[in-house]
Amino acid sequence: MEGKFITLEGGEGVGKSTNLEHLRNLLEQQGIDYIETREPGGTPLAEELRALLLAEREEPVSSDCELLLMFAARAQHLSQTILPALARGQWVLCDRFTDATFAYQGGGRGLDWQRIETLEQLVQGELRPDLTLLLDVPVEVGMARARGRGELDRFEQEQQSFFEKVRAAYLRRAEAEPGRFRVIDAGLSLDQVQQQITDVMAEFFRG
Amino acid sequence: MEGKFITLEGGEGVGKSTNLEHLRNLLEQQGIDYIETREPGGTPLAEELRALLLAEREEPVSSDCELLLMFAARAQHLSQTILPALARGQWVLCDRFTDATFAYQGGGRGLDWQRIETLEQLVQGELRPDLTLLLDVPVEVGMARARGRGELDRFEQEQQSFFEKVRAAYLRRAEAEPGRFRVIDAGLSLDQVQQQITDVMAEFFRG
Repeated sequence: MEGKFITLEGGEGVGKSTNLEHLRNLLEQQGIDYIETREPGGTPLAEELRALLLAEREEPVSSDCELLLMFAARAQHLSQTILPALARGQWVLCDRFTDATFAYQGGGRGLDWQRIETLEQLVQGELRPDLTLLLDVPVEVGMARARGRGELDRFEQEQQSFFEKVRAAYLRRAEAEPGRFRVIDAGLSLDQVQQQITDVMAEFFRG
Repeated sequence: MEGKFITLEGGEGVGKSTNLEHLRNLLEQQGIDYIETREPGGTPLAEELRALLLAEREEPVSSDCELLLMFAARAQHLSQTILPALARGQWVLCDRFTDATFAYQGGGRGLDWQRIETLEQLVQGELRPDLTLLLDVPVEVGMARARGRGELDRFEQEQQSFFEKVRAAYLRRAEAEPGRFRVIDAGLSLDQVQQQITDVMAEFFRG
């Protein structure tokens, strides 16, 4: 039997790391064989591309170059890590996937939505995650939390308006694919956030 | 006035380096202000991507990843180097461009031609070189010359059948766009090859 492909999405400071751990615990309680991975990254070459993407550099990176690098890393990640795991029957828990490209490059940087859809179709065909948990939080709250964590990378140094657009793009994706998305209100207390995730996963495990 | 965009194409051992120098001399004799660049590469980031693409690595590189990296480097090269030079009125002399992607990834690796066309359209829109010189030589001759040069990189280690497909794909592109392509018989003596190039450029300079 094929494994299930679960992605966790959200902007800055929504609590992805903490809630990934919670997801891990839930999968382990079910005795599910899974791998955990992330985007951009998930293979040695894709991690090299991640480092290129996140590096500070004097040369301005064209938006098309950034977009194509994201999908290059994704193609490699799919072929070397995600698809082989699913074929072996393992579940895949992935920290961000294509929805993040729509959110950051499409929403945040304003790249044409249809150009991203063209690349999604080219690289993924009909493949989509089986379940996507979107951790959603007001931008001021998320940014304050991210700042509290210390250093900000190239993406995190963007302005608040950028993150408003990221959030709106995530919610647009969630509205367009309600069957796959579950939007988690991540502005509540940690207990309440984790309870929502527990409930979503219980429903998903029941199939 | 906008500059002209000239590309030089061909498989292994066709004499690109020697004939690039000849082209350089012809441009200088005309007093043309030009830049010389290459693909993959042509900006610091694109050269980093070139190094990634040509590196030996244990991890198999998926054909989609390779293709997307080529176009990522190209998008950056266009936005940072080629288009600004043309806009300043400089000519651009480029050692390989998109035709090489069709030849190597499409012909050589057998990637779907239409996937490459999709990316060409995405990254370039209607932009094409004003003139493409294709150095064409029988594969046995080219490979013997390339071997004589010493070490072979990842692409050059392919088999003869690979290079037959590369050559056929180049010729297919040339047939499809006869207005832009000039096919140079590079199997003749150096003098004869350079005379063909001199003639083609004289015609091009006359407009």
